[in-house]
Amino acid sequence: MMKGRNLVVLIGIPSWLFLIWKGDLYYSIFILICMALALGEFYSLMEEKGAKPLRWMGMAATVFIADYYYVQPAITPHEMLGGIILIIILTCIWELFSKKENSGQNIAATLAGIMFVPVLLGTAIDIRQFDLLMSTQLTLVLVLSVWACDTAAFIFGTLYGKKKIFPSVSPKKSWVGSVAGLIAAMAVFLGFYYQDWLGSYFSLKDAIVFGLITGVFGQIGDLAESLLKRDAGVKDTGTLLAGHGGVLDRFDSLIFAMPLAYLYVHFIMHY
Amino acid sequence: MMKGRNLVVLIGIPSWLFLIWKGDLYYSIFILICMALALGEFYSLMEEKGAKPLRWMGMAATVFIADYYYVQPAITPHEMLGGIILIIILTCIWELFSKKENSGQNIAATLAGIMFVPVLLGTAIDIRQFDLLMSTQLTLVLVLSVWACDTAAFIFGTLYGKKKIFPSVSPKKSWVGSVAGLIAAMAVFLGFYYQDWLGSYFSLKDAIVFGLITGVFGQIGDLAESLLKRDAGVKDTGTLLAGHGGVLDRFDSLIFAMPLAYLYVHFIMHY
Repeated sequence: MMKGRNLVVLIGIPSWLFLIWKGDLYYSIFILICMALALGEFYSLMEEKGAKPLRWMGMAATVFIADYYYVQPAITPHEMLGGIILIIILTCIWELFSKKENSGQNIAATLAGIMFVPVLLGTAIDIRQFDLLMSTQLTLVLVLSVWACDTAAFIFGTLYGKKKIFPSVSPKKSWVGSVAGLIAAMAVFLGFYYQDWLGSYFSLKDAIVFGLITGVFGQIGDLAESLLKRDAGVKDTGTLLAGHGGVLDRFDSLIFAMPLAYLYVHFIMHY
Repeated sequence: MMKGRNLVVLIGIPSWLFLIWKGDLYYSIFILICMALALGEFYSLMEEKGAKPLRWMGMAATVFIADYYYVQPAITPHEMLGGIILIIILTCIWELFSKKENSGQNIAATLAGIMFVPVLLGTAIDIRQFDLLMSTQLTLVLVLSVWACDTAAFIFGTLYGKKKIFPSVSPKKSWVGSVAGLIAAMAVFLGFYYQDWLGSYFSLKDAIVFGLITGVFGQIGDLAESLLKRDAGVKDTGTLLAGHGGVLDRFDSLIFAMPLAYLYVHFIMHY
């Protein structure tokens, strides 16, 4: 087990960093695969609760949404919404003709999975495309910042973490650990900013906001995923990454941090 | 009961036709109210199955989506998607802090309701705005066509309907009734087209496609809603409209017909 865990770290981290550096189509396909795996895990969680999501519908929607984020500036709001409408109607019709039990729950689980995984995580593709256009390193620093946050939270939480932050959802998370995580996340962004590695497009204020996004909402994303797992009565979402749980477990911080960074870039910075 | 039923017809139908004629803000607010009521009924169906959807979240999303369809051409895909992302993240965080049971199911029901009701039904606002711009009567004819379809299906189904079309979902719908409904839906569109009342923007082919949309997918929307009701073990979605069930019951044909007309107008006709 420990050996498998180390192997994942040894192969996984350099590969991920390499793909972030490569960017464009390679990175987008990598994210697409991650989204499909994470969605499959989300659907397994829903199945624990008695729903039978339409897995293939979810996968088809994932491809559509990944493609949307990839080519995005060239797409109109009508086309965007048209795709979503088609997904909803096809899901309902598919469920109608599949003649299963619990139809309402099956439709709800199918659509919720599409919203929770590809719509949120797909923003990772958009942000990398933004990096490409603006010669920035936002993707890389977001990922490093999340890792720093997790690591600091784990170390300080283990050493000094007494008062728990949200015991009903995540019995291990402590206040000390979470604050340490926030500081580490912030430090990574400020470090990159002051070294001029983040990209000249971003100001100090931007770096601080991104630090808050990963440091605070990364950890809230983590809690949200724990909530789903706890509700389904499972410890990990999958066993694909030996000792690291599933893909959804590995992306739990990014699942809120990436879309919030997307909102910040497109709404507040008006890119 | 019968009196209440007649009263709804006497007041409801002229009011609806008046609002379609008025269009713009009046009609859009009317549709917004219908969406909010229908979403409330959808959530009640989900509650029958044990979920506790976040009703206020759904209502807030409904207002956002109605506004989107109303002002739509002025909105970018980023803004559109940004709103959806915000809805998803807020739903998860809200559920996290509300500390209820069955979190996964609650989040799924909340998001699915938003997809099923306002995203689909909101296209009614877009189509009326399209009518305004192009001096067409698509909204009016869609509604009349659905009424004709329902009426013909009911009369012919009652008189001659032996072979049932989908007994597991809707025990009353017959093949004879459904075909009669399709013919009636088509006849309304062709009638308006040949009288030049549909608007010069549409060709004969367009009128035929719209007839098929209401005649075929209007009835499938009806079945999809029956599926949800049957799953929840209720006969009507609400009691608001005495003898007519709830708002969702009244809009069940339009819930697929309107968005499909939207897709046709914006994708196939490339408006």
